[in-house]
Amino acid sequence: MTTHRFDAAIALKPDSSERDVFHGETSAEYGNMVGPFGGATAATLLRAILDHPALLGSPVSLTVNFAAPLADGAFTIGARPVRTNRSNQHWMLELCQGELPVVTGTAVTGLRRETWSATEERPPEAPAPEGLSPQQPPEGIAWVSNYDIRFVRGALPDSGSAESADSRSTLWVRDAPPRPLDFPALAARCDAFFPRVFLRRGGYVPAGTVSMTAYFHADTAAVAAQSEEYVLGTARAQRFGNGYFDQLAELWSRDGTLLATTHQIVYFKG
Amino acid sequence: MTTHRFDAAIALKPDSSERDVFHGETSAEYGNMVGPFGGATAATLLRAILDHPALLGSPVSLTVNFAAPLADGAFTIGARPVRTNRSNQHWMLELCQGELPVVTGTAVTGLRRETWSATEERPPEAPAPEGLSPQQPPEGIAWVSNYDIRFVRGALPDSGSAESADSRSTLWVRDAPPRPLDFPALAARCDAFFPRVFLRRGGYVPAGTVSMTAYFHADTAAVAAQSEEYVLGTARAQRFGNGYFDQLAELWSRDGTLLATTHQIVYFKG
Repeated sequence: MTTHRFDAAIALKPDSSERDVFHGETSAEYGNMVGPFGGATAATLLRAILDHPALLGSPVSLTVNFAAPLADGAFTIGARPVRTNRSNQHWMLELCQGELPVVTGTAVTGLRRETWSATEERPPEAPAPEGLSPQQPPEGIAWVSNYDIRFVRGALPDSGSAESADSRSTLWVRDAPPRPLDFPALAARCDAFFPRVFLRRGGYVPAGTVSMTAYFHADTAAVAAQSEEYVLGTARAQRFGNGYFDQLAELWSRDGTLLATTHQIVYFKG
Repeated sequence: MTTHRFDAAIALKPDSSERDVFHGETSAEYGNMVGPFGGATAATLLRAILDHPALLGSPVSLTVNFAAPLADGAFTIGARPVRTNRSNQHWMLELCQGELPVVTGTAVTGLRRETWSATEERPPEAPAPEGLSPQQPPEGIAWVSNYDIRFVRGALPDSGSAESADSRSTLWVRDAPPRPLDFPALAARCDAFFPRVFLRRGGYVPAGTVSMTAYFHADTAAVAAQSEEYVLGTARAQRFGNGYFDQLAELWSRDGTLLATTHQIVYFKG
Protein backbone atom coordinates (compact mmCIF):
# COMPACT_ATOMS: atom_id res chain seq x y z
CA MET A 1 0.00 0.00 0.00
CA THR A 2 1.45 3.37 -0.96
CA THR A 3 0.94 6.46 1.18
CA HIS A 4 -1.19 9.18 -0.46
CA ARG A 5 0.84 12.37 -0.94
CA PHE A 6 -1.57 14.24 1.34
CA ASP A 7 -0.80 11.83 4.19
CA ALA A 8 2.91 12.13 3.47
CA ALA A 9 2.62 15.95 3.51
CA ILE A 10 0.88 16.14 6.90
CA ALA A 11 2.70 13.23 8.61
CA LEU A 12 4.12 13.88 12.07
CA LYS A 13 6.53 12.09 14.39
CA PRO A 14 5.74 12.17 18.09
CA ASP A 15 8.56 13.62 20.18
CA SER A 16 10.52 10.96 22.03
CA SER A 17 10.02 12.55 25.44
CA GLU A 18 7.30 15.24 25.34
CA ARG A 19 3.74 13.88 24.94
CA ASP A 20 2.38 17.16 23.51
CA VAL A 21 5.13 17.70 20.92
CA PHE A 22 5.24 16.51 17.31
CA HIS A 23 7.81 16.98 14.55
CA GLY A 24 7.05 17.54 10.87
CA GLU A 25 8.36 18.97 7.66
CA THR A 26 6.80 21.10 4.93
CA SER A 27 6.04 19.36 1.62
CA ALA A 28 7.00 20.95 -1.70
CA GLU A 29 4.01 19.18 -3.28
CA TYR A 30 1.65 21.26 -1.12
CA GLY A 31 3.52 24.54 -1.61
CA ASN A 32 1.68 27.81 -2.20
CA MET A 33 3.21 31.01 -3.58
CA VAL A 34 5.00 31.64 -0.26
CA GLY A 35 5.32 28.65 2.09
CA PRO A 36 2.87 25.77 2.22
CA PHE A 37 -0.87 25.80 1.38
CA GLY A 38 -2.67 27.03 4.51
CA GLY A 39 -5.15 24.15 4.26
CA ALA A 40 -2.28 21.65 4.56
CA THR A 41 -1.02 23.51 7.64
CA ALA A 42 -4.49 23.40 9.22
CA ALA A 43 -4.67 19.67 8.42
CA THR A 44 -1.26 19.11 9.99
CA LEU A 45 -2.37 20.78 13.25
CA LEU A 46 -5.45 18.57 13.24
CA ARG A 47 -3.19 15.55 12.55
CA ALA A 48 -1.32 16.34 15.80
CA ILE A 49 -4.60 16.29 17.74
CA LEU A 50 -5.78 13.06 16.09
CA ASP A 51 -2.38 11.42 16.79
CA HIS A 52 -2.37 12.56 20.44
CA PRO A 53 -2.74 9.68 22.93
CA ALA A 54 -5.12 11.69 25.17
CA LEU A 55 -7.63 12.57 22.40
CA LEU A 56 -11.32 12.59 23.38
CA GLY A 57 -13.87 12.42 20.57
CA SER A 58 -13.68 13.90 17.08
CA PRO A 59 -13.12 17.48 15.83
CA VAL A 60 -15.87 20.04 16.53
CA SER A 61 -14.02 23.29 15.84
CA LEU A 62 -10.57 24.40 14.74
CA THR A 63 -9.09 27.91 14.61
CA VAL A 64 -5.73 28.45 12.93
CA ASN A 65 -3.88 31.79 12.93
CA PHE A 66 -1.13 32.34 10.39
CA ALA A 67 1.26 34.53 12.37
CA ALA A 68 4.20 34.50 9.95
CA PRO A 69 5.23 32.80 6.68
CA LEU A 70 6.16 29.15 7.26
CA ALA A 71 9.65 28.50 5.85
CA ASP A 72 10.33 25.34 3.83
CA GLY A 73 11.72 22.68 6.14
CA ALA A 74 11.26 21.26 9.63
CA PHE A 75 8.82 22.49 12.28
CA THR A 76 7.60 21.48 15.72
CA ILE A 77 3.96 21.41 16.82
CA GLY A 78 2.79 21.73 20.39
CA ALA A 79 -0.73 20.29 20.77
CA ARG A 80 -1.81 20.59 24.38
CA PRO A 81 -5.16 19.28 25.70
CA VAL A 82 -5.64 22.06 28.25
CA ARG A 83 -9.04 20.95 29.51
CA THR A 84 -10.75 17.59 29.22
CA ASN A 85 -14.42 17.51 30.21
CA ARG A 86 -16.87 14.62 30.25
CA SER A 87 -17.95 15.11 26.64
CA ASN A 88 -15.42 17.52 25.11
CA GLN A 89 -11.79 18.55 25.13
CA HIS A 90 -10.08 21.93 24.53
CA TRP A 91 -6.75 22.20 22.73
CA MET A 92 -4.10 24.89 22.37
CA LEU A 93 -1.89 24.65 19.30
CA GLU A 94 1.43 26.22 18.37
CA LEU A 95 3.60 25.49 15.35
CA CYS A 96 7.17 26.74 15.78
CA GLN A 97 10.25 27.06 13.62
CA GLY A 98 13.22 27.89 15.82
CA GLU A 99 12.07 29.72 18.93
CA LEU A 100 9.17 31.64 17.43
CA PRO A 101 5.58 30.49 16.85
CA VAL A 102 4.66 30.72 13.17
CA VAL A 103 1.11 29.38 13.48
CA THR A 104 -1.13 29.37 16.55
CA GLY A 105 -4.50 27.84 17.10
CA THR A 106 -7.15 26.31 19.28
CA ALA A 107 -9.49 23.39 18.77
CA VAL A 108 -12.37 21.60 20.41
CA THR A 109 -13.00 17.89 20.07
CA GLY A 110 -16.05 16.14 21.42
CA LEU A 111 -18.05 12.97 21.73
CA ARG A 112 -21.02 13.12 19.39
CA ARG A 113 -24.43 11.88 20.39
CA GLU A 114 -27.68 11.76 18.52
CA THR A 115 -29.90 14.81 19.01
CA TRP A 116 -32.67 16.64 17.22
CA SER A 117 -31.23 17.73 13.87
CA ALA A 118 -32.05 20.10 11.04
CA THR A 119 -30.15 21.72 8.20
CA GLU A 120 -31.37 25.24 7.58
CA GLU A 121 -28.85 26.24 4.94
CA ARG A 122 -29.53 24.97 1.40
CA PRO A 123 -26.79 23.54 -0.83
CA PRO A 124 -25.87 25.66 -3.87
CA GLU A 125 -27.25 24.65 -7.28
CA ALA A 126 -24.66 22.65 -9.16
CA PRO A 127 -24.57 20.28 -12.14
CA ALA A 128 -22.75 16.96 -11.65
CA PRO A 129 -18.95 17.29 -11.51
CA GLU A 130 -18.46 14.72 -14.28
CA GLY A 131 -19.86 17.20 -16.83
CA LEU A 132 -17.55 20.06 -15.78
CA SER A 133 -13.92 20.66 -16.78
CA PRO A 134 -11.22 20.34 -14.15
CA GLN A 135 -9.40 23.57 -13.28
CA GLN A 136 -6.02 23.98 -14.93
CA PRO A 137 -3.59 24.50 -12.02
CA PRO A 138 -2.22 28.07 -12.12
CA GLU A 139 1.56 28.26 -12.60
CA GLY A 140 3.72 28.24 -9.51
CA ILE A 141 0.98 27.05 -7.11
CA ALA A 142 1.97 23.43 -6.47
CA TRP A 143 -0.83 22.44 -4.07
CA VAL A 144 -3.62 22.94 -6.62
CA SER A 145 -2.31 19.95 -8.64
CA ASN A 146 -3.25 17.70 -5.71
CA TYR A 147 -6.94 18.54 -6.09
CA ASP A 148 -9.47 17.85 -8.80
CA ILE A 149 -11.38 21.17 -8.68
CA ARG A 150 -14.34 21.76 -10.99
CA PHE A 151 -15.84 25.25 -10.87
CA VAL A 152 -19.60 25.66 -11.09
CA ARG A 153 -19.20 29.44 -10.92
CA GLY A 154 -16.61 32.01 -9.88
CA ALA A 155 -13.49 30.40 -11.38
CA LEU A 156 -10.06 31.93 -10.77
CA PRO A 157 -9.91 35.08 -12.93
CA ASP A 158 -7.23 35.29 -15.61
CA SER A 159 -5.49 38.31 -17.07
CA GLY A 160 -8.47 39.19 -19.26
CA SER A 161 -11.06 39.08 -16.45
CA ALA A 162 -13.22 42.06 -15.49
CA GLU A 163 -14.09 43.22 -11.98
CA SER A 164 -17.13 41.47 -10.55
CA ALA A 165 -19.82 42.65 -8.15
CA ASP A 166 -20.08 39.17 -6.66
CA SER A 167 -17.35 37.25 -4.81
CA ARG A 168 -19.05 33.85 -4.81
CA SER A 169 -17.32 30.70 -6.06
CA THR A 170 -18.99 27.30 -6.11
CA LEU A 171 -16.88 24.24 -6.90
CA TRP A 172 -16.57 20.49 -6.66
CA VAL A 173 -13.36 19.31 -5.06
CA ARG A 174 -11.67 16.02 -4.28
CA ASP A 175 -8.08 14.89 -3.86
CA ALA A 176 -6.07 14.01 -6.97
CA PRO A 177 -5.46 11.12 -6.95
CA PRO A 178 -8.67 10.36 -5.02
CA ARG A 179 -8.33 9.60 -1.30
CA PRO A 180 -11.02 8.74 1.25
CA LEU A 181 -12.25 11.81 3.15
CA ASP A 182 -11.23 12.26 6.79
CA PHE A 183 -11.10 15.27 9.12
CA PRO A 184 -7.65 16.50 8.03
CA ALA A 185 -8.72 16.36 4.37
CA LEU A 186 -11.94 18.21 5.22
CA ALA A 187 -9.97 20.88 7.15
CA ALA A 188 -7.65 21.36 4.18
CA ARG A 189 -10.60 21.82 1.79
CA CYS A 190 -11.92 24.60 4.05
CA ASP A 191 -9.01 26.63 2.67
CA ALA A 192 -9.30 25.47 -0.96
CA PHE A 193 -10.99 28.69 -2.16
CA PHE A 194 -8.68 31.33 -3.63
CA PRO A 195 -8.94 34.83 -2.04
CA ARG A 196 -12.34 36.40 -2.82
CA VAL A 197 -10.70 39.72 -3.63
CA PHE A 198 -9.33 38.17 -6.87
CA LEU A 199 -12.89 37.80 -8.20
CA ARG A 200 -13.99 41.27 -7.15
CA ARG A 201 -10.88 42.96 -8.62
CA GLY A 202 -10.72 40.71 -11.68
CA GLY A 203 -7.19 39.49 -11.07
CA TYR A 204 -4.34 38.86 -8.69
CA VAL A 205 -3.92 41.05 -5.59
CA PRO A 206 -1.44 40.28 -2.76
CA ALA A 207 -3.51 38.49 -0.09
CA GLY A 208 -3.06 35.95 2.69
CA THR A 209 -5.26 34.28 5.29
CA VAL A 210 -4.65 35.68 8.77
CA SER A 211 -7.09 33.51 10.76
CA MET A 212 -9.35 30.65 9.76
CA THR A 213 -12.01 28.75 11.72
CA ALA A 214 -13.75 25.52 10.74
CA TYR A 215 -16.82 24.01 12.39
CA PHE A 216 -17.26 20.30 11.71
CA HIS A 217 -20.91 19.32 11.56
CA ALA A 218 -20.31 15.75 10.38
CA ASP A 219 -19.26 13.01 12.77
CA THR A 220 -16.57 10.44 11.97
CA ALA A 221 -19.01 8.03 10.29
CA ALA A 222 -20.52 10.75 8.07
CA VAL A 223 -17.06 11.91 7.01
CA ALA A 224 -15.88 8.36 6.27
CA ALA A 225 -19.07 7.68 4.27
CA GLN A 226 -17.94 10.25 1.68
CA SER A 227 -15.03 8.00 0.73
CA GLU A 228 -13.51 9.37 -2.51
CA GLU A 229 -16.62 11.28 -3.63
CA TYR A 230 -16.47 14.97 -4.59
CA VAL A 231 -17.41 17.60 -1.99
CA LEU A 232 -19.37 20.68 -3.09
CA GLY A 233 -17.95 23.94 -1.75
CA THR A 234 -19.26 27.48 -1.93
CA ALA A 235 -17.55 30.64 -0.64
CA ARG A 236 -18.21 34.37 -0.57
CA ALA A 237 -17.12 37.53 1.24
CA GLN A 238 -19.23 39.95 3.27
CA ARG A 239 -16.99 43.01 3.52
CA PHE A 240 -13.66 44.22 2.09
CA GLY A 241 -11.87 47.25 3.52
CA ASN A 242 -9.06 48.66 5.67
CA GLY A 243 -6.69 45.96 4.44
CA TYR A 244 -8.84 42.92 5.32
CA PHE A 245 -11.84 40.95 4.08
CA ASP A 246 -13.78 38.03 5.47
CA GLN A 247 -14.75 34.80 3.71
CA LEU A 248 -17.59 32.38 4.56
CA ALA A 249 -17.71 28.92 3.07
CA GLU A 250 -19.72 25.72 3.25
CA LEU A 251 -18.67 22.18 2.34
CA TRP A 252 -21.50 19.84 1.31
CA SER A 253 -21.55 16.14 0.55
CA ARG A 254 -22.79 15.15 -2.88
CA ASP A 255 -26.05 13.91 -1.32
CA GLY A 256 -26.74 17.23 0.44
CA THR A 257 -25.23 16.87 3.93
CA LEU A 258 -23.58 20.01 5.30
CA LEU A 259 -20.23 18.59 6.39
CA ALA A 260 -18.47 21.76 7.55
CA THR A 261 -18.85 25.54 7.66
CA THR A 262 -15.80 27.76 7.72
CA HIS A 263 -14.76 31.40 7.99
CA GLN A 264 -11.57 33.30 7.50
CA ILE A 265 -10.22 36.81 7.66
CA VAL A 266 -7.75 37.66 4.93
CA TYR A 267 -5.17 40.42 4.61
CA PHE A 268 -4.97 42.11 1.22
CA LYS A 269 -3.28 45.01 -0.51
CA GLY A 270 -4.55 47.43 -3.14
CA MET B 1 -17.67 60.88 36.15
CA THR B 2 -19.16 57.51 37.08
CA THR B 3 -17.89 54.28 35.55
CA HIS B 4 -20.42 52.49 33.31
CA ARG B 5 -21.33 49.09 34.73
CA PHE B 6 -19.93 47.40 31.59
CA ASP B 7 -16.52 48.98 32.21
CA ALA B 8 -16.70 47.96 35.86
CA ALA B 9 -17.59 44.38 34.84
CA ILE B 10 -14.66 43.95 32.43
CA ALA B 11 -12.07 45.97 34.39
CA LEU B 12 -8.66 44.34 34.93
CA LYS B 13 -5.65 45.06 37.11
CA PRO B 14 -2.23 44.43 35.58
CA ASP B 15 -0.13 42.00 37.59
CA SER B 16 2.58 43.72 39.60
CA SER B 17 5.40 41.65 38.10
CA GLU B 18 4.25 39.75 34.99
CA ARG B 19 3.63 41.96 31.93
CA ASP B 20 1.28 39.43 30.27
CA VAL B 21 -0.91 38.75 33.34
CA PHE B 22 -4.08 40.58 34.41
CA HIS B 23 -6.44 40.05 37.35
CA GLY B 24 -10.22 40.43 37.26
CA GLU B 25 -13.42 39.36 38.90
CA THR B 26 -16.80 38.25 37.54
CA SER B 27 -19.69 40.71 37.84
CA ALA B 28 -23.09 39.60 39.13
CA GLU B 29 -24.65 42.30 36.93
CA TYR B 30 -23.43 40.46 33.83
CA GLY B 31 -24.39 37.00 35.07
CA ASN B 32 -26.00 34.43 32.81
CA MET B 33 -27.82 31.28 33.93
CA VAL B 34 -24.52 29.62 34.85
CA GLY B 35 -21.53 31.94 35.27
CA PRO B 36 -21.10 35.23 33.44
CA PHE B 37 -22.50 36.23 30.02
CA GLY B 38 -20.05 34.89 27.40
CA GLY B 39 -20.02 38.25 25.65
CA ALA B 40 -18.69 39.91 28.82
CA THR B 41 -15.97 37.24 29.04
CA ALA B 42 -14.99 37.85 25.40
CA ALA B 43 -14.91 41.60 26.11
CA THR B 44 -12.73 41.03 29.18
CA LEU B 45 -10.17 39.08 27.12
CA LEU B 46 -10.14 41.91 24.58
CA ARG B 47 -9.75 44.37 27.49
CA ALA B 48 -6.52 42.56 28.47
CA ILE B 49 -5.17 43.00 24.93
CA LEU B 50 -6.18 46.67 24.76
CA ASP B 51 -4.59 47.31 28.18
CA HIS B 52 -1.35 45.51 27.23
CA PRO B 53 1.66 47.87 26.94
CA ALA B 54 2.96 46.07 23.82
CA LEU B 55 -0.30 46.35 21.79
CA LEU B 56 0.05 47.01 18.05
CA GLY B 57 -3.01 48.31 16.21
CA SER B 58 -6.67 47.54 16.83
CA PRO B 59 -8.62 44.24 16.91
CA VAL B 60 -8.97 42.30 13.64
CA SER B 61 -10.11 38.90 14.93
CA LEU B 62 -10.88 37.26 18.25
CA THR B 63 -11.59 33.59 19.01
CA VAL B 64 -12.80 32.61 22.48
CA ASN B 65 -13.29 29.00 23.60
CA PHE B 66 -15.43 28.32 26.66
CA ALA B 67 -13.67 25.30 28.12
CA ALA B 68 -15.53 25.10 31.44
CA PRO B 69 -18.08 27.13 33.42
CA LEU B 70 -16.54 30.26 34.92
CA ALA B 71 -17.19 30.33 38.66
CA ASP B 72 -18.28 33.58 40.33
CA GLY B 73 -15.22 35.32 41.72
CA ALA B 74 -11.63 36.11 40.83
CA PHE B 75 -9.73 35.02 37.72
CA THR B 76 -6.40 35.61 36.05
CA ILE B 77 -5.90 36.31 32.35
CA GLY B 78 -2.72 35.58 30.44
CA ALA B 79 -2.57 37.68 27.25
CA ARG B 80 0.65 36.97 25.41
CA PRO B 81 1.69 38.75 22.19
CA VAL B 82 3.41 35.72 20.66
CA ARG B 83 4.34 37.33 17.36
CA THR B 84 4.57 41.00 16.43
CA ASN B 85 4.96 41.73 12.73
CA ARG B 86 5.30 45.05 10.93
CA SER B 87 1.54 45.52 10.54
CA ASN B 88 -0.10 42.94 12.81
CA GLN B 89 0.26 41.10 16.09
CA HIS B 90 -0.83 37.60 17.19
CA TRP B 91 -2.09 36.91 20.71
CA MET B 92 -2.65 33.80 22.81
CA LEU B 93 -5.19 34.10 25.60
CA GLU B 94 -5.91 32.00 28.68
CA LEU B 95 -8.31 32.80 31.51
CA CYS B 96 -7.64 30.67 34.60
CA GLN B 97 -9.30 30.05 37.94
CA GLY B 98 -6.91 28.15 40.18
CA GLU B 99 -4.53 26.08 38.08
CA LEU B 100 -6.87 25.22 35.23
CA PRO B 101 -7.73 27.26 32.13
CA VAL B 102 -11.46 27.98 31.96
CA VAL B 103 -11.41 30.02 28.75
CA THR B 104 -8.81 29.96 25.97
CA GLY B 105 -8.47 32.11 22.92
CA THR B 106 -6.43 33.76 20.22
CA ALA B 107 -6.60 37.19 18.66
CA VAL B 108 -5.06 39.24 15.90
CA THR B 109 -4.63 43.00 16.09
CA GLY B 110 -3.40 45.12 13.23
CA LEU B 111 -2.69 48.56 11.86
CA ARG B 112 -5.42 49.57 9.45
CA ARG B 113 -4.70 51.36 6.21
CA GLU B 114 -6.99 52.58 3.50
CA THR B 115 -7.58 50.10 0.68
CA TRP B 116 -10.17 49.35 -1.97
CA SER B 117 -13.39 48.62 -0.12
CA ALA B 118 -16.80 47.09 -0.78
CA THR B 119 -19.61 45.66 1.32
CA GLU B 120 -21.22 42.72 -0.41
CA GLU B 121 -23.59 41.68 2.34
CA ARG B 122 -26.79 43.75 2.66
CA PRO B 123 -28.17 44.89 6.04
CA PRO B 124 -31.43 43.26 7.13
CA GLU B 125 -34.68 45.19 6.69
CA ALA B 126 -35.63 46.86 9.97
CA PRO B 127 -37.91 49.68 11.11
CA ALA B 128 -36.37 52.32 13.41
CA PRO B 129 -35.72 51.07 16.98
CA GLU B 130 -37.71 53.96 18.51
CA GLY B 131 -40.95 52.44 17.20
CA LEU B 132 -40.26 48.97 18.65
CA SER B 133 -40.79 47.72 22.22
CA PRO B 134 -37.75 46.89 24.33
CA GLN B 135 -37.37 43.21 25.27
CA GLN B 136 -38.53 42.34 28.77
CA PRO B 137 -35.48 40.70 30.40
CA PRO B 138 -36.19 37.00 31.04
CA GLU B 139 -36.11 36.03 34.71
CA GLY B 140 -32.80 34.92 36.16
CA ILE B 141 -30.66 36.25 33.27
CA ALA B 142 -29.03 39.34 34.79
CA TRP B 143 -26.95 40.47 31.80
CA VAL B 144 -29.95 41.16 29.56
CA SER B 145 -30.97 44.09 31.82
CA ASN B 146 -27.79 45.89 30.76
CA TYR B 147 -28.94 46.02 27.13
CA ASP B 148 -31.76 47.81 25.38
CA ILE B 149 -32.73 45.07 22.89
CA ARG B 150 -35.56 45.63 20.40
CA PHE B 151 -36.48 42.66 18.26
CA VAL B 152 -37.39 43.18 14.62
CA ARG B 153 -38.05 39.44 14.24
CA GLY B 154 -37.23 36.19 16.00
CA ALA B 155 -37.82 37.29 19.62
CA LEU B 156 -37.05 34.90 22.49
CA PRO B 157 -39.83 32.28 22.46
CA ASP B 158 -42.04 31.98 25.53
CA SER B 159 -43.87 28.97 26.92
CA GLY B 160 -46.65 29.29 24.32
CA SER B 161 -44.31 29.43 21.30
CA ALA B 162 -44.43 26.92 18.45
CA GLU B 163 -41.48 25.32 16.67
CA SER B 164 -40.16 27.44 13.81
CA ALA B 165 -38.56 26.48 10.50
CA ASP B 166 -36.35 29.56 10.64
CA SER B 167 -33.70 30.39 13.24
CA ARG B 168 -33.17 34.03 12.28
CA SER B 169 -33.37 36.86 14.81
CA THR B 170 -32.89 40.51 13.88
CA LEU B 171 -32.61 43.08 16.66
CA TRP B 172 -31.44 46.55 17.61
CA VAL B 173 -29.12 46.60 20.61
CA ARG B 174 -27.33 49.20 22.72
CA ASP B 175 -26.09 49.35 26.29
CA ALA B 176 -28.57 50.31 29.02
CA PRO B 177 -27.78 52.91 30.16
CA PRO B 178 -26.26 54.02 26.85
CA ARG B 179 -22.47 53.94 26.56
CA PRO B 180 -20.22 54.90 23.61
CA LEU B 181 -19.31 51.90 21.46
CA ASP B 182 -15.77 50.52 21.59
CA PHE B 183 -14.22 47.17 20.66
CA PRO B 184 -15.01 45.39 23.96
CA ALA B 185 -18.66 46.50 23.70
CA LEU B 186 -18.77 45.32 20.09
CA ALA B 187 -17.24 41.95 21.05
CA ALA B 188 -19.86 41.52 23.80
CA ARG B 189 -22.71 42.22 21.37
CA CYS B 190 -21.40 39.46 19.09
CA ASP B 191 -22.74 37.11 21.78
CA ALA B 192 -26.01 39.00 22.47
CA PHE B 193 -28.15 36.54 20.47
CA PHE B 194 -29.83 33.77 22.46
CA PRO B 195 -29.16 30.20 21.22
CA ARG B 196 -30.82 29.67 17.81
CA VAL B 197 -32.11 26.27 18.90
CA PHE B 198 -34.64 28.04 21.18
CA LEU B 199 -36.40 29.49 18.11
CA ARG B 200 -36.35 26.25 16.18
CA ARG B 201 -37.67 24.19 19.12
CA GLY B 202 -40.08 26.89 20.34
CA GLY B 203 -38.65 27.10 23.85
CA TYR B 204 -35.78 26.56 26.21
CA VAL B 205 -33.23 23.79 25.55
CA PRO B 206 -29.95 23.39 27.51
CA ALA B 207 -27.30 25.06 25.32
CA GLY B 208 -23.96 26.86 25.68
CA THR B 209 -21.41 28.44 23.36
CA VAL B 210 -18.31 26.30 22.95
CA SER B 211 -16.28 28.54 20.63
CA MET B 212 -16.92 31.99 19.22
CA THR B 213 -15.02 34.03 16.65
CA ALA B 214 -15.48 37.71 15.79
CA TYR B 215 -14.03 39.55 12.81
CA PHE B 216 -13.87 43.32 13.25
CA HIS B 217 -14.38 45.14 9.97
CA ALA B 218 -14.57 48.62 11.48
CA ASP B 219 -11.47 50.53 12.53
CA THR B 220 -11.22 52.51 15.78
CA ALA B 221 -12.65 55.69 14.24
CA ALA B 222 -15.66 53.89 12.72
CA VAL B 223 -16.40 52.16 16.04
CA ALA B 224 -16.10 55.42 18.00
CA ALA B 225 -18.36 57.21 15.49
CA GLN B 226 -21.25 54.98 16.59
CA SER B 227 -21.18 56.64 20.03
CA GLU B 228 -24.38 55.60 21.87
CA GLU B 229 -26.37 54.73 18.75
CA TYR B 230 -28.15 51.36 18.38
CA VAL B 231 -26.42 48.58 16.43
CA LEU B 232 -28.49 46.31 14.17
CA GLY B 233 -27.76 42.61 14.64
CA THR B 234 -28.95 39.58 12.73
CA ALA B 235 -28.18 35.93 13.49
CA ARG B 236 -29.10 32.51 12.12
CA ALA B 237 -27.93 28.90 12.20
CA GLN B 238 -26.88 26.70 9.28
CA ARG B 239 -27.00 23.21 10.78
CA PHE B 240 -28.15 21.56 14.02
CA GLY B 241 -27.18 17.97 14.85
CA ASN B 242 -25.01 15.56 16.84
CA GLY B 243 -25.20 17.81 19.90
CA TYR B 244 -23.98 21.04 18.25
CA PHE B 245 -25.18 23.85 16.01
CA ASP B 246 -23.48 26.83 14.43
CA GLN B 247 -24.56 30.46 14.48
CA LEU B 248 -23.63 33.26 12.05
CA ALA B 249 -24.27 36.89 12.92
CA GLU B 250 -23.65 40.36 11.56
CA LEU B 251 -23.54 43.67 13.45
CA TRP B 252 -24.42 46.76 11.39
CA SER B 253 -24.30 50.44 12.22
CA ARG B 254 -27.55 52.35 11.92
CA ASP B 255 -26.26 53.99 8.73
CA GLY B 256 -25.46 50.66 7.05
CA THR B 257 -21.80 49.97 7.86
CA LEU B 258 -20.96 46.32 8.55
CA LEU B 259 -19.04 46.67 11.83
CA ALA B 260 -18.40 43.01 12.66
CA THR B 261 -19.23 39.48 11.53
CA THR B 262 -19.20 36.64 14.02
CA HIS B 263 -19.65 32.87 14.25
CA GLN B 264 -20.06 30.42 17.04
CA ILE B 265 -20.52 26.73 17.63
CA VAL B 266 -22.95 25.88 20.38
CA TYR B 267 -23.47 22.70 22.39
CA PHE B 268 -27.11 21.70 22.94
CA LYS B 269 -29.17 18.88 24.38
CA GLY B 270 -32.46 17.43 23.24
